[in-house]
Amino acid sequence: MDLDFVFYPRSIAIVGITTLNVKHWTRAFLTGLVEFKYPGKLYLVNPKGGQIEGITVCKSLEEIGETIDYVIGLIPASAAPELVTQVAYKGTRVIHFCTAGFSETGEKEGIRLEKEVLEAAKKHNIRIIGPNCLGVYCPDSRVSFSPLFPKESGNIGFLSQSGGNFGSLMRDAGLRGVRFSKAVSYGNAGDLNEADFLEYFANDPKTEIVAMYIEGLKDGKRFRQALEKISSTKPVIIFKGGVTEGGARAVAGHTSSLAGNERIWDSLCKQFNIIRVNSLTEIVDVLVTLGHFTRPKGRNAVIIGGGGGASVMITDKFEKKGLKVPQLPQDIISKIREYTPVAGNILKNPVDYSDGLGFRDKVEKTLTLINEWEGADFIVKFIRAGQTPTLGKKMGLEYLLEPSKTGNGITSKPVAAVIEGSLLPPEQEGTYETMKFYADRGLPVYHSFDSAATAIDRVLSYYETKDRRG
Amino acid sequence: MDLDFVFYPRSIAIVGITTLNVKHWTRAFLTGLVEFKYPGKLYLVNPKGGQIEGITVCKSLEEIGETIDYVIGLIPASAAPELVTQVAYKGTRVIHFCTAGFSETGEKEGIRLEKEVLEAAKKHNIRIIGPNCLGVYCPDSRVSFSPLFPKESGNIGFLSQSGGNFGSLMRDAGLRGVRFSKAVSYGNAGDLNEADFLEYFANDPKTEIVAMYIEGLKDGKRFRQALEKISSTKPVIIFKGGVTEGGARAVAGHTSSLAGNERIWDSLCKQFNIIRVNSLTEIVDVLVTLGHFTRPKGRNAVIIGGGGGASVMITDKFEKKGLKVPQLPQDIISKIREYTPVAGNILKNPVDYSDGLGFRDKVEKTLTLINEWEGADFIVKFIRAGQTPTLGKKMGLEYLLEPSKTGNGITSKPVAAVIEGSLLPPEQEGTYETMKFYADRGLPVYHSFDSAATAIDRVLSYYETKDRRG
Repeated sequence: MDLDFVFYPRSIAIVGITTLNVKHWTRAFLTGLVEFKYPGKLYLVNPKGGQIEGITVCKSLEEIGETIDYVIGLIPASAAPELVTQVAYKGTRVIHFCTAGFSETGEKEGIRLEKEVLEAAKKHNIRIIGPNCLGVYCPDSRVSFSPLFPKESGNIGFLSQSGGNFGSLMRDAGLRGVRFSKAVSYGNAGDLNEADFLEYFANDPKTEIVAMYIEGLKDGKRFRQALEKISSTKPVIIFKGGVTEGGARAVAGHTSSLAGNERIWDSLCKQFNIIRVNSLTEIVDVLVTLGHFTRPKGRNAVIIGGGGGASVMITDKFEKKGLKVPQLPQDIISKIREYTPVAGNILKNPVDYSDGLGFRDKVEKTLTLINEWEGADFIVKFIRAGQTPTLGKKMGLEYLLEPSKTGNGITSKPVAAVIEGSLLPPEQEGTYETMKFYADRGLPVYHSFDSAATAIDRVLSYYETKDRRG
Repeated sequence: MDLDFVFYPRSIAIVGITTLNVKHWTRAFLTGLVEFKYPGKLYLVNPKGGQIEGITVCKSLEEIGETIDYVIGLIPASAAPELVTQVAYKGTRVIHFCTAGFSETGEKEGIRLEKEVLEAAKKHNIRIIGPNCLGVYCPDSRVSFSPLFPKESGNIGFLSQSGGNFGSLMRDAGLRGVRFSKAVSYGNAGDLNEADFLEYFANDPKTEIVAMYIEGLKDGKRFRQALEKISSTKPVIIFKGGVTEGGARAVAGHTSSLAGNERIWDSLCKQFNIIRVNSLTEIVDVLVTLGHFTRPKGRNAVIIGGGGGASVMITDKFEKKGLKVPQLPQDIISKIREYTPVAGNILKNPVDYSDGLGFRDKVEKTLTLINEWEGADFIVKFIRAGQTPTLGKKMGLEYLLEPSKTGNGITSKPVAAVIEGSLLPPEQEGTYETMKFYADRGLPVYHSFDSAATAIDRVLSYYETKDRRG
């Protein structure tokens, strides 16, 4: 089934937009479209009428004389079935119901209303997204339910049953340079469900990687088929919510899903070489690795940073994940030693430039030596929280990125950056800018030693399994 | 051995303080003492003389006519042995050598110099801290090697072989309300080592909890004895660096320690009911739990927050760690339902107040109901990144903390707070202030769902083992 009509609507109506409270969170549906410069026709509907952001609010759907491709429903659940019937006469093909209060409540009335909505939609050949979700984000068609998401398009398709988790992921992903082809928060999945979207992503040439936060399946058989198909050509990342007894109960209350058996998910992921993760941050970690970290020849890392204790910790994290931090050969150490004072610097790998500031030429020389060493498959640069921006700026990754040099700066080997975030206000701006600087230039940026090691291992394991299975 | 003379010096000399570069990081030794208002005599020594921060710099030690209890050595390694001999005539009892370039280099000259320093010190009955470390922090005596550490005293003793890790830990601990009796960064442990400090902490009435970042042992037998003794009365947390082959090599280059066998550490920790952790943040997580989270009767949590997806994720994290998130009894759910609209709110536990703002009275009523329920042992409140300060302020923990109510606010059950940190500048200040608000009022604050679950499980397991062993 071709869901292009869901992601590329020519006209949108927001029905039930609040005219009173400009700070209400649902205003983001409008500001998202306005700030993304949605080029289609945009209608607002509220019986009170008036104007919002220079757009006249229609008092009823009747005032709109033209076709409405796509309706965003912000009305109460009780009014939802009627809205379906009304828009049927406007040629509407899809309604996204943001509204909650349906089957996820577990109460009779909510279950009845959802059934009524779905029956009316089926009758009129209208597809439903949700209810109880945030809908579609497609920078390609300039549709977004938030003005805060990245405006540039990318190659990642994202499915999320949770709207809140969608927003959380997007904030981190945006900062770290991850860009999406299209994404959808689909909540209760009353009509369009995980299998529909996954099938679409499999066929969508603009989607090359797929990630999902999923709480349960509406159509397990078709999902499995879609997963088998897509995983043969595109990497897939799954974060499954509701893997414990209590979590499964929360899932039932959140999106009315059946969480399913953990063992089934586990074997499904193993069978189709799915990258399984355990948090939203881990989804982004894997996405930056797949997207921004050229596959290295092997698992041997050379690590460069400032701090002996940090060098010990990051090495432990990498080696615990089956990555290797091999000792540099003595001839390279001797060469580095020629221009590096011994006090405060560890040269064996990690290369710890603790002595601090003003040694750009040394870092360059060292990187050139490491670049020529066959034993190094990739390079990891770390900057601890608190070292940015003072130390970070001085020994920063700009040396790796200079356009005058070969490959990814002065090294042709893949490079990853760990830039620890800081919670302390005096350090935050510098840290944020440093992260953004590298992420914007296409380097994979991680927030912690552990997350870098975990994600790089996961992605290398994915490639290794793929190679093995042929 | 009584090391009070290390932590309570009556006079301090900083020898080799830089007079040129006011931004050099070693200036923190001076600004630490100045900002902590160290009440003893403070001398600065540099052959160039002059004045720093209103203090006259002595051109030589001879200019100081009085006893110097404690010397901070910032001179090059090559000059270190001579300094020991010089200060012997000043009645000095302890020298802290910040200087690196000793045995940790693995080079002959460094090893020889360290040996020479130690022999001279022994001859003159002077104890050495380090070399290659940052030394002592003791808010009680107003000694600190950084102006950024907490000025208030607490009940935690902290040992760190790494100075950088000491600083990293202290930044997070300070923000989250953790306070220390005394702490020491002791580097190569050439003279005073882990066993000396641990024995001291065992006898120190001001130290009730001990945490350590340790890379290797200088005196394994005595350390083991000290650990056995202290762990029978005080909780001990250990983060061991260098548990992999590469990590062990980094340890050798960092503090010239032998990392030791991982299995030995593992069995040592099990035998003495040591809380073993894997990162600096995890040390702080356990410290806030031990210090600020009253031991609950059992493992049953009621979780309150905003967001269905978040509710699912936090429940999974808690139950994976063997904590329980039991369903609320139907009569309590029915009572909550009376004043809570069904749409967008999950009431079973987690109690998810997604509907947003302005429902202080509802949260109060709900907490009162939960407080009366025998099935709840403790309460966890979460605020996601991005919900602070808007949602966070409205549904914040101030309801739990009101002095007019019983116990810890309006609930007598232990309360923990998860406040996700944000890396996005517009949210950072609000998040930081919210964290600080609760931490300053004695609530345990965690940065993530996972860290809260992990730390609470670790501390409950510690108590359970203690009970079992009697």
